[in-house]
Amino acid sequence: MARLIKKISSTIGLPPGTLVHVGEEMTRKVRITLIDYDETDIKESTVESIEDVFPFKDKPSVTWINIDGVHQTDIIEKIDGHFGIHPLVLEDIVNTAQRPKTEDYGDYLFVVVKMMYLDIKGGDIVSEQMSFILGPNYVISFQEKEGDVFDTIRDRIRGKKGRIRKMGADYLAYSLLDAIIDNYFVILEQVGINVETLEDRLMSNVDQSMARSIHTIKRNMIFLRKQIWPLREVISSLQRNETKLVKKTTVVYLRDVYDHTIQVIDTIESFRDTLSGLHDIYLSSISNRMNEIMKVLTIFAAIFIPLTFIAGVYGMNFEFMPELRWKYGYFTVLAVMAGVGGGLALYFKKKKWF
Amino acid sequence: MARLIKKISSTIGLPPGTLVHVGEEMTRKVRITLIDYDETDIKESTVESIEDVFPFKDKPSVTWINIDGVHQTDIIEKIDGHFGIHPLVLEDIVNTAQRPKTEDYGDYLFVVVKMMYLDIKGGDIVSEQMSFILGPNYVISFQEKEGDVFDTIRDRIRGKKGRIRKMGADYLAYSLLDAIIDNYFVILEQVGINVETLEDRLMSNVDQSMARSIHTIKRNMIFLRKQIWPLREVISSLQRNETKLVKKTTVVYLRDVYDHTIQVIDTIESFRDTLSGLHDIYLSSISNRMNEIMKVLTIFAAIFIPLTFIAGVYGMNFEFMPELRWKYGYFTVLAVMAGVGGGLALYFKKKKWF
Amino acid sequence: MARLIKKISSTIGLPPGTLVHVGEEMTRKVRITLIDYDETDIKESTVESIEDVFPFKDKPSVTWINIDGVHQTDIIEKIDGHFGIHPLVLEDIVNTAQRPKTEDYGDYLFVVVKMMYLDIKGGDIVSEQMSFILGPNYVISFQEKEGDVFDTIRDRIRGKKGRIRKMGADYLAYSLLDAIIDNYFVILEQVGINVETLEDRLMSNVDQSMARSIHTIKRNMIFLRKQIWPLREVISSLQRNETKLVKKTTVVYLRDVYDHTIQVIDTIESFRDTLSGLHDIYLSSISNRMNEIMKVLTIFAAIFIPLTFIAGVYGMNFEFMPELRWKYGYFTVLAVMAGVGGGLALYFKKKKWF
Amino acid sequence: MARLIKKISSTIGLPPGTLVHVGEEMTRKVRITLIDYDETDIKESTVESIEDVFPFKDKPSVTWINIDGVHQTDIIEKIDGHFGIHPLVLEDIVNTAQRPKTEDYGDYLFVVVKMMYLDIKGGDIVSEQMSFILGPNYVISFQEKEGDVFDTIRDRIRGKKGRIRKMGADYLAYSLLDAIIDNYFVILEQVGINVETLEDRLMSNVDQSMARSIHTIKRNMIFLRKQIWPLREVISSLQRNETKLVKKTTVVYLRDVYDHTIQVIDTIESFRDTLSGLHDIYLSSISNRMNEIMKVLTIFAAIFIPLTFIAGVYGMNFEFMPELRWKYGYFTVLAVMAGVGGGLALYFKKKKWF
Amino acid sequence: MARLIKKISSTIGLPPGTLVHVGEEMTRKVRITLIDYDETDIKESTVESIEDVFPFKDKPSVTWINIDGVHQTDIIEKIDGHFGIHPLVLEDIVNTAQRPKTEDYGDYLFVVVKMMYLDIKGGDIVSEQMSFILGPNYVISFQEKEGDVFDTIRDRIRGKKGRIRKMGADYLAYSLLDAIIDNYFVILEQVGINVETLEDRLMSNVDQSMARSIHTIKRNMIFLRKQIWPLREVISSLQRNETKLVKKTTVVYLRDVYDHTIQVIDTIESFRDTLSGLHDIYLSSISNRMNEIMKVLTIFAAIFIPLTFIAGVYGMNFEFMPELRWKYGYFTVLAVMAGVGGGLALYFKKKKWF
Repeated sequence: MARLIKKISSTIGLPPGTLVHVGEEMTRKVRITLIDYDETDIKESTVESIEDVFPFKDKPSVTWINIDGVHQTDIIEKIDGHFGIHPLVLEDIVNTAQRPKTEDYGDYLFVVVKMMYLDIKGGDIVSEQMSFILGPNYVISFQEKEGDVFDTIRDRIRGKKGRIRKMGADYLAYSLLDAIIDNYFVILEQVGINVETLEDRLMSNVDQSMARSIHTIKRNMIFLRKQIWPLREVISSLQRNETKLVKKTTVVYLRDVYDHTIQVIDTIESFRDTLSGLHDIYLSSISNRMNEIMKVLTIFAAIFIPLTFIAGVYGMNFEFMPELRWKYGYFTVLAVMAGVGGGLALYFKKKKWF
Repeated sequence: MARLIKKISSTIGLPPGTLVHVGEEMTRKVRITLIDYDETDIKESTVESIEDVFPFKDKPSVTWINIDGVHQTDIIEKIDGHFGIHPLVLEDIVNTAQRPKTEDYGDYLFVVVKMMYLDIKGGDIVSEQMSFILGPNYVISFQEKEGDVFDTIRDRIRGKKGRIRKMGADYLAYSLLDAIIDNYFVILEQVGINVETLEDRLMSNVDQSMARSIHTIKRNMIFLRKQIWPLREVISSLQRNETKLVKKTTVVYLRDVYDHTIQVIDTIESFRDTLSGLHDIYLSSISNRMNEIMKVLTIFAAIFIPLTFIAGVYGMNFEFMPELRWKYGYFTVLAVMAGVGGGLALYFKKKKWF
Repeated sequence: MARLIKKISSTIGLPPGTLVHVGEEMTRKVRITLIDYDETDIKESTVESIEDVFPFKDKPSVTWINIDGVHQTDIIEKIDGHFGIHPLVLEDIVNTAQRPKTEDYGDYLFVVVKMMYLDIKGGDIVSEQMSFILGPNYVISFQEKEGDVFDTIRDRIRGKKGRIRKMGADYLAYSLLDAIIDNYFVILEQVGINVETLEDRLMSNVDQSMARSIHTIKRNMIFLRKQIWPLREVISSLQRNETKLVKKTTVVYLRDVYDHTIQVIDTIESFRDTLSGLHDIYLSSISNRMNEIMKVLTIFAAIFIPLTFIAGVYGMNFEFMPELRWKYGYFTVLAVMAGVGGGLALYFKKKKWF
Repeated sequence: MARLIKKISSTIGLPPGTLVHVGEEMTRKVRITLIDYDETDIKESTVESIEDVFPFKDKPSVTWINIDGVHQTDIIEKIDGHFGIHPLVLEDIVNTAQRPKTEDYGDYLFVVVKMMYLDIKGGDIVSEQMSFILGPNYVISFQEKEGDVFDTIRDRIRGKKGRIRKMGADYLAYSLLDAIIDNYFVILEQVGINVETLEDRLMSNVDQSMARSIHTIKRNMIFLRKQIWPLREVISSLQRNETKLVKKTTVVYLRDVYDHTIQVIDTIESFRDTLSGLHDIYLSSISNRMNEIMKVLTIFAAIFIPLTFIAGVYGMNFEFMPELRWKYGYFTVLAVMAGVGGGLALYFKKKKWF
Repeated sequence: MARLIKKISSTIGLPPGTLVHVGEEMTRKVRITLIDYDETDIKESTVESIEDVFPFKDKPSVTWINIDGVHQTDIIEKIDGHFGIHPLVLEDIVNTAQRPKTEDYGDYLFVVVKMMYLDIKGGDIVSEQMSFILGPNYVISFQEKEGDVFDTIRDRIRGKKGRIRKMGADYLAYSLLDAIIDNYFVILEQVGINVETLEDRLMSNVDQSMARSIHTIKRNMIFLRKQIWPLREVISSLQRNETKLVKKTTVVYLRDVYDHTIQVIDTIESFRDTLSGLHDIYLSSISNRMNEIMKVLTIFAAIFIPLTFIAGVYGMNFEFMPELRWKYGYFTVLAVMAGVGGGLALYFKKKKWF
């Protein structure tokens, strides 16, 4: 299950701006890829050393530097030197326990979001911190590990699909955000299927595992909500942005992303409400089942205990018990027992207990 | 039951503005109807090809182009070409998983709402996306399928009822919104009847199906709320609109629609509160019933178990048991049993257990 | 019980401004009363035809036209003609399913509120829509049926009590609002008594009807809240009003009415909180009672079942059972039984089960 | 228990400004005390007739007129005449069912708050309406009965403690507010002790009275909240006040009072949260106890019912039952019984039922 | 467990500005340490008398005066004299029951926060009030007792780590806040571990202590929330501050602290939601367990009670009971019993009761 809090205590007490990687232990080498494009040309490469990307800073074409892995803090520090990024930004990049946020530093914008996708195997939700710096004509994106949701964007750049090649770095940044939020819908669709499956199961039968299934989905919703709720603010502040970094033509696209974010949040809230309804059904089902069990017990006990008593009476060894000597005493008693038992059965039948 | 999330994953990764129909599979031909009217004249027709409506764009009369079916994306694209609509708008039209919203593009307003009505057969709530573009003198409305709640508007246009023929395209747009929101009341009336029926049933008797009935209505409320809540914002932003597209004389009508929307939301909240109260009653009824069952069991067990014990004592085979030889031993024991049993019965009677 | 939604579907699809009466069927003749007063003179009459009141429109004295019954739409339409009221206002007057609201039309203010009082017989809450139009020197008030909460105002006008005769039409309008909101307190007092009675009963004893009593009050609170909550906005917008219709000297009185409205809302919320606390007590009382029942059962069963077993053992018919032949076998067994039974009884006593 | 609503129906229908005392019946004579002070001089007296205080209105020294008892409306009316107070203010003073509020009338400020203290005997919360009028150099305070929380203020004035003698009437008003809010903390401390006592008791044992104790505290919290919540607004509006009546040097003290009010509200909310947690524990304790009772019953029943059955079998009177004639039949059966009983006991032991 | 309200009643009734220490009884001598530094020099000392620090007030270097212990009010009063601090500030310093807040007095800023850390032994949350005064070039910090979370800051100052030596007093103040908020994460990490441990335990087994564990964590969350929620406002108002005391270069760091505060609050809310989910699971687990117990009881009772009845019938002593004389009567009855018992067992098996 997704953890509600990342272990960040290792960073405590360090001066601000100190680069300490917070997150899963990583040993892999950091992979740096570069795509530089304008309307006519495109250059794509995997660079060996971070210094190779520096010349692109001042080229008029749009440059997308993607860094897979934030655990090698020296690479991040070199970027600091060349691109003139505030140390706090760099600290936030390597500390993967950030809250989604956007910060305007004048020359560049810094955005932190959470990339989320379903684990291929178990269907668990995987969350990865994705942060990027949007400069006048470049985007530097930082991911925790290789593998992302941006392949379709790369295809569009390579294949000149849509208008991405005609637009600037801000449109590229928008595209990244859009791709990330679109993937939230994939997760929500899966959650929706799970909720509806659970709903169907609850309607037909109840077993103990359901309380846990409900809790697991609920907990995932708490996790998603914590990650996605701040996004609303992030995107709405990008939209309002007075900076020249986000052009007016791109703002209309951000509005679209904003709508999607609201829709994601709405859906999460709907799921939460539905889940709480499911829990109510679950609880009342348990109570109903208890009622059923008690009815069975009561019917058996209430019918046979009096009968056993009657049998007990005639099992007494008194010397003087006239009934015992009657010829039809035994059959009379059997008849009485049948009458009492049948009468009680009818009584419970009338009470609709079975 | 209404689904809480539509499957939209097929659109993910495509460049923005790509038209991909999201919604039920449709094979029917798209039906395009046109009503063009001013105070004196009216022209109504079903057009074969979307090009036929283009000349009406610049006519001073009010033109209402209604398109039943958004699955033929080529038709939507042609409208793009002629009316100069932003690609994102067209994408939103064909993607029927939108959140209600309004967007001002200067030359035209784009509005997405959800048309809802009760299924003729089962009484289920059917939701259909209705979007429209309000231009200076035209309204282009897009629906998912044929059949809508606008027949009364068409009648009013044809019959010159009310002031619709004297007003502009903005009043037509208002009329569409009004018709849609009026239909929410029909749904709420039905829900209100269901809630009250459930309430009456709960007051007299309780059975297991009620928890599910409560949940079904609750879930419908969650669904309605998700669709209608954003409407408030939509209409209030239309009202505040500084655009010339919505005239001052129409704003007063929008205020009326706004009031209705608030009333719909209020009513949904009241239903939610009432349903949660019904669930409380349901739960306490189950508990009460359990108490009843346990009382029956306890009365039977507590009265007969001691009696059976007494019978058991005199059923023992000891050689020396003086009571067994007394002449009235048997009757004495019977009397004692009657006393004990009656005493216990009185005790439970006094405790008001039956 | 008060209905949560009025049947308004009959109005759907009609052009806005069409007068369709929504509410209880009425056959009575509409009664129109007129009070015209200034500081020195007063004229009071029941007019036969609505035309009789028209001359008062432009008189400088304050005119209060009260119309008991909004089901005769022709009368309402005639007022339209003479006083120049917007058709939407008239539609809202006859449709008694309005939400409380105020609308400023420049020349006049339109206010809708809910008049509520306790049914004389059953103590049920009766809600009636009261709307009025405040012109420069007249108030036209519309009620669903005869009988209202304004008799004290009429007495004050007739008897020159207070400052009402010295003030304008806006003060009269304020007086109407004040009288209506004062009556909410009467209802709340009754509800308060009911809540406290229920509280006392719950403290001493619990029966099944209480869940329903709690629900009935809760539902009434939902109903009241839905009607009164919007009032806050209504009165606060009257206070802020920049129109000349409400004079500065009257605004201070409106502030007082506003305070009362807030107090009503506060009290409703307090009741809701208290009721939810009562439901908690109710539920825990049921559970406690269940515990009591189970204790009785367990004590009886746990004491007598082992004893019956012992009796059963010595009721076996084995040929060789040495104890049966002992002289004091029987008494020994009785003593053992007394010991076991007493021991168990002490055990339960120690566990504080009785 | 504190009542959630005061009986105010007697005032309904009267013209605004009519002085009707709402509150406990009082017969005592109203006591009027006067303290007039400046930095050097102080004059303190109990005045017989309200006219005696009139000359102090225009003296430059600070005058504090305290009136214990608002049931003699003629006194209030005389103040009206001399100090020029708006009739609505006077009405609010005698109607002790007011919501805390502040109103700025230009020449004077009117403030209503609730003075609360613990009943000396029972520890019940006593609430009394305290209202005061702050003029340029006087404070007129109105209390429902004698006895207040202002003795320390009087001591400070007499003893020249602190800066009260150097400051104006606004500082005196602040001191009154401060004293009242400080007393809320005394109440909250007592409530805190009650909550913690209850918490400790719940941790060790559960009995039925606790649900009621929880409810009583919860209800007190609802009552306190209703009285104190509006105070936030009252003091924050005093702080923002543009009137000359509150001097800048006093505003900093009001900020302090504001902080205290927020702290009171925070604490009430914390208590509410804690109480709802206690109720949860209480409910789960009842359920646990039920489980315990059921376990005892089940263990007894499940062990002895099969044994009794075996005894019953050998108590049958068939002529041909070979076991009955075996020499060790009886002991074999006893051994079997011991085995079955022991086995079941072990089974329940393994299930950790005892 | 942390107390929800501190005992402050001893301060009630005193004039504002009176220094009364509120908090744990302290007898220790107050320890005053001083660090004075600029980019090149550093002076660190433990001063004996508060007068020793006065000369540093006007030195251009940054001076950090830390006072461990606020129970010696004379020391606080001397600071008052020399640094010109408002009496209310001094009162707030010694009253350790303050709500976190910031107040701008023009020449200096006053900030109250809560320093929290985990108790070394029990893992309990310890809360200590930390307040500081930020002047142009000095910070005076006040703690309740020795021992704090600032050692890393002292190390950084001594070791010239980070930029602290190059920045002013405002950066030092920021560093203090940052260190305090960083420590909240340590607490939250521990709480997170506790919550997840509880979650795992609940998934496998349920015992009565869990309700209390849940309650204890919940209560800690209520406590933390009460302390941390106001921090948001504190830091956001420091950020917005127009005072010259906080330089622009420091505001960007405050934004970082603000983000952390929001993250702390988010995490607390997540925990609360999760805990409420855990309570739901706990409750349903108890109910499930009850179902299990009842099933065992019902199976035993329902199978053996009818069998015992049959045995009872043939234990009757009627003279004429034909079956008793049949040769295979006994075995027939045994077979019938086996059949009845087996049939019932199968029935319960089919119902999936075991």
